[in-house]
Amino acid sequence: MILALAGGVGGAKLAAGLARALSPGELTVVVNTGDDFDHLGLHVSPDLDTVMYTLAGVANPQAGWGREGETWNFMQSMATLGGPTWFQLGDKDLATHIERTRCLRSGESLTSVTRALCGRLGVRHAVLPMSDDPVRTVVHTEKGELDFQHYFVRERCKPRVSRIEYHKASAARPSPQFAAALADPALEGIVICPSNPYLSIAPILAIPGVRDVVARCPRVLAVSPIIAGKAVKGPAAKLMQELGAQPGALEIARWYRGIVRTLVIDRSDAALAPQIEALGIVAAVEDALMRDDAGRERLARACLARLVR
Amino acid sequence: MILALAGGVGGAKLAAGLARALSPGELTVVVNTGDDFDHLGLHVSPDLDTVMYTLAGVANPQAGWGREGETWNFMQSMATLGGPTWFQLGDKDLATHIERTRCLRSGESLTSVTRALCGRLGVRHAVLPMSDDPVRTVVHTEKGELDFQHYFVRERCKPRVSRIEYHKASAARPSPQFAAALADPALEGIVICPSNPYLSIAPILAIPGVRDVVARCPRVLAVSPIIAGKAVKGPAAKLMQELGAQPGALEIARWYRGIVRTLVIDRSDAALAPQIEALGIVAAVEDALMRDDAGRERLARACLARLVR
Repeated sequence: MILALAGGVGGAKLAAGLARALSPGELTVVVNTGDDFDHLGLHVSPDLDTVMYTLAGVANPQAGWGREGETWNFMQSMATLGGPTWFQLGDKDLATHIERTRCLRSGESLTSVTRALCGRLGVRHAVLPMSDDPVRTVVHTEKGELDFQHYFVRERCKPRVSRIEYHKASAARPSPQFAAALADPALEGIVICPSNPYLSIAPILAIPGVRDVVARCPRVLAVSPIIAGKAVKGPAAKLMQELGAQPGALEIARWYRGIVRTLVIDRSDAALAPQIEALGIVAAVEDALMRDDAGRERLARACLARLVR
Repeated sequence: MILALAGGVGGAKLAAGLARALSPGELTVVVNTGDDFDHLGLHVSPDLDTVMYTLAGVANPQAGWGREGETWNFMQSMATLGGPTWFQLGDKDLATHIERTRCLRSGESLTSVTRALCGRLGVRHAVLPMSDDPVRTVVHTEKGELDFQHYFVRERCKPRVSRIEYHKASAARPSPQFAAALADPALEGIVICPSNPYLSIAPILAIPGVRDVVARCPRVLAVSPIIAGKAVKGPAAKLMQELGAQPGALEIARWYRGIVRTLVIDRSDAALAPQIEALGIVAAVEDALMRDDAGRERLARACLARLVR
């Protein structure tokens, strides 16, 4: 059994590749919920949705969020009514948020709701929130303390970041299914997807106990979300710079030092391999850009081959 | 100033006719909120919406609820996700419920939210909920006690009704604006629209003090929602029968006895006029079926002419 840690578009893409390479019983995808927030009275779980929609084959490939073939009549009416429109919610997507919120209010756990939604969308591999407890990523910026979605969507990642916090993480527990997967004797390895380390992976590792268990696992591999000094998507490179680091796969290696055994880097970063290996991390050079389904599967299979080596 | 009491499709149609005949300062429409309910975590106000959409010219004329040119992508996704689908919510309509709920949760009154929504939709005449307090119409049936929308929409009015209750009505107060309109020296008359008396008008009259003030008003006119023994729309005739009365304009007159001075009945019911007049009510024979905008305005003007006579 392989455990994948994911969040965001890159994470969802590799999770989809792993789902093509592994049977449902062989893969569990654990997803960041630090981005979750309450909007218009609805519980929105952006990373869970991106992973779920991507695995279900209904994600919008252009946007990197939301559903394909989406319509925007709700949003247009909200604009007419003068309601908040900074966070776009498609008509189809809205059903996910409303149904999730309904089930959570009736006492279901986020894990249970996610399983039900995934089942309805035809996702056969396990997708788990990292926790059923609330963890909220907060970004300290020159414009003050911002909730993650306010920073990410409303402010379009523009304010300069000085610090990132994972509110309530210290009080959160891994979801029972995540804890069980971490303790499962059948666990063969952990793949940390090419997600933003600060925003998608750090919240998962911030849950008490998780970092230690992951670090003790002999086979942990991460895929660098930075290729040739640039983030494939999202603010990872900008954040690195603002947090005082040189954007690049080498910085990713430094960040994952003590946690991962192997870091997959793109061919264009092959020259960094000696410096990464000097940190005690195996640098695995692969074609790390996932252009299509075949590219996702190819990278997934390469990760699996590197893991069991 | 004319006060109209309304609820449902017939009520909305006459309210729209009155809005064509009167300037914004001359008309206040007070709407039943006994049908309001919480669905999927949203505060849904069916009668307010029907009146608001009708006055805004964006109502679906076929359905009698919801918006014209509506799309159903949210609803289709809800069905895919296994959520409740018995209450249809169009993509555009959903914005009304979400925005209303958001504003109510932030502490606004239903009156204030309704004014804002109406303003955004271009409704210039005052539309008021009967109360900012919750009143819930409950229908006692052979299938047990049903919340109104469960009876009306989910069960399609099929269960036989033995009794109707207006929960919490005795603790509700008329909205301050409704109370002010009732006490306004400029009030020239009250038009009770052709709405279901048991389901749309009774909840308004059940609010402490309202029935007495309406009954004391010298110029109160009602329009019969029953034409030739049949309800133009909805379960009024079926309900009358189940509650032990003969469906017809005469029964409407009996029900409004002591409250209205004048009852407008359709030409097809002209033969009932002597029996209605015997109850001490002026029977005003008009073409009471509103087929189009012109029909609404014509009936509205006829009502106004009868009121001031």
